[in-house]
Amino acid sequence: MSEPVMHHRTAEFKGIFARAQAKLAQVFFVDEVIILSASGSAAFEAGMLAAVPAKAKVLAINAGKFGERWLLLAQKYGYEVIEIKIPWGKTVDFKVLEDTLKSEPDIKAVMTTHSETSTGVLHDVKKIAKTVKQELPDALVLVDAVSSLAAAELRPKEWGLDMVSAGSQKGLMMPPGLAFVYMSQRAWASKTNLKPSFYLDIRKERISQQKNTTAYTSPVNMIYALDAALDIIIAEGIENLWQKRALYTEAILQSAELLGCSRFAQRVSPAVAALRAPEGIKAADIVAEFAKRGLRIAGGQDHVKEFLFRPAVLGYGDKYDVITVVAVLEEVLRELGLDIPYAKGVAKAMQVLG
Amino acid sequence: MSEPVMHHRTAEFKGIFARAQAKLAQVFFVDEVIILSASGSAAFEAGMLAAVPAKAKVLAINAGKFGERWLLLAQKYGYEVIEIKIPWGKTVDFKVLEDTLKSEPDIKAVMTTHSETSTGVLHDVKKIAKTVKQELPDALVLVDAVSSLAAAELRPKEWGLDMVSAGSQKGLMMPPGLAFVYMSQRAWASKTNLKPSFYLDIRKERISQQKNTTAYTSPVNMIYALDAALDIIIAEGIENLWQKRALYTEAILQSAELLGCSRFAQRVSPAVAALRAPEGIKAADIVAEFAKRGLRIAGGQDHVKEFLFRPAVLGYGDKYDVITVVAVLEEVLRELGLDIPYAKGVAKAMQVLG
Repeated sequence: MSEPVMHHRTAEFKGIFARAQAKLAQVFFVDEVIILSASGSAAFEAGMLAAVPAKAKVLAINAGKFGERWLLLAQKYGYEVIEIKIPWGKTVDFKVLEDTLKSEPDIKAVMTTHSETSTGVLHDVKKIAKTVKQELPDALVLVDAVSSLAAAELRPKEWGLDMVSAGSQKGLMMPPGLAFVYMSQRAWASKTNLKPSFYLDIRKERISQQKNTTAYTSPVNMIYALDAALDIIIAEGIENLWQKRALYTEAILQSAELLGCSRFAQRVSPAVAALRAPEGIKAADIVAEFAKRGLRIAGGQDHVKEFLFRPAVLGYGDKYDVITVVAVLEEVLRELGLDIPYAKGVAKAMQVLG
Repeated sequence: MSEPVMHHRTAEFKGIFARAQAKLAQVFFVDEVIILSASGSAAFEAGMLAAVPAKAKVLAINAGKFGERWLLLAQKYGYEVIEIKIPWGKTVDFKVLEDTLKSEPDIKAVMTTHSETSTGVLHDVKKIAKTVKQELPDALVLVDAVSSLAAAELRPKEWGLDMVSAGSQKGLMMPPGLAFVYMSQRAWASKTNLKPSFYLDIRKERISQQKNTTAYTSPVNMIYALDAALDIIIAEGIENLWQKRALYTEAILQSAELLGCSRFAQRVSPAVAALRAPEGIKAADIVAEFAKRGLRIAGGQDHVKEFLFRPAVLGYGDKYDVITVVAVLEEVLRELGLDIPYAKGVAKAMQVLG
């Protein structure tokens, strides 16, 4: 009654839900996306359980923290997991991928991240999918796009991806709390011998969502936010957004290189600028100095903790935020003992940004 | 960087998370509650998978839409499910419960809803737990408290409940999007032969949450809202809130009875006033007439759709909202053909509210 929140089983809410769904599909370059009330990680689990038969052999391309997460997920659920382990910061060697697919012809699905946030690498999922189609045409390609959606070029249908998972809190400029799953027609058709799932059962969700509602209570306020965020993205143009994000990240990387840092990613993700700290400076100190100035940047995880730091300009960030990041980086490195002339990095950033 | 949302791996956020966790435990009358980014339904699944061994025999007390949901959940995951099916609107017959527990001594867990939203019944989970302890001391008692938390008396530790699931969108006056799980010490200790779960794995979550963080991306904005909502509830006094909710629901029920409706629940849940429409009037018409006046009330589900409607005053609702509901009900019933003197129901509501 006096609830400040619109009830989720009303015609008004269904209208908003339908609109948000349609716009989300547009941004995904697909026809249909399932929306879950959960963090982005839940989407990969939901998609995998909905399409890959129990005990199937799956290939995990593990190139960082998130690649490892999906490998652990698959192991936990009893899939037979083959791993291609890639050093952090690197991309997959396509010869190795081809050979693995040739030598394990009963692989039913290949798992990969698109933008691997832990390393700043954008994996070439288009080429990965093409390679899989060539060697094992029936294997499904499962892609974690949590940090690449609305940040890097992503065309699941055109590229032949079978499952793409994403979340609300990265490129969509929203708070965390929504998870998204796209599945290809053949992934939807792959429905025999699945492991059970209940809350994350996107096959049940699909039946509800095709009627513009959700199987469980809808995260109404988040759906309003999604609807609004998608309007901004569509008005800007999704392709423009991809270019802008790539330019911003490149500007940070080139400026930082001039200041003594080095880029970590072999193939750069527009979602995050992964940087190796200059010799003799600890990444944790850079992160701490940024924090003192009120700016939050991510440090490195696991074995790259010592030297990696990862500034990112996502959400509503514009080119002046990029300049700010570079200005702060200059100041911080000076504070930590480097001798850097004023605006050396900022000049580079401005030049790259144009 | 320019994110409008606080990053979830920061000391500031950890402080807020720790505070919200502690206050949530206080409102639950327990020591520890796990918080998930998901709808309330996910909490029951998470709790069940975290404590009940695979293939175990479980007893489902099915007294409505939600009781049925947990039965289906258990079946889907391959548990051996014994059912006590109760007519909608009724409570469990304790003789039947005792007999069932005696005749199926290998039952490992008993599932029940506390407030069954579909029928407006408050199930006596205290007595259910006592009965289970008497007959099968080792069986776990799993309780869905999604709509009873902060609405009806609930003392999981004192009553010996082993798992209690809840969500953010009912008594806590918040938008949907957070799920909560309490587990008893012996439920946490029951960790052999569990079915796998990943995103909803509260044993993994617990390790993170004991360090004031979450295993996956934290729903930061929802945690702020939780922190604020709990302050309001604790300031009001949780026991006062229970009394107030019960009084509001009773006021609606008694007024509606005077207007020709009848109460549906054998034992009334303070969370919702389940009412049978007067003879000759369709519940759907009452719901539609409320909607025309800008007030949303729930209709009936499944086989009670024809005659059940369910107004509720939760969230920030106060006694004047109760009076409004009754005034609208009067007007609506008059519109639908009943001859009701002005304020007949409202006078009763005011008398009950005092």
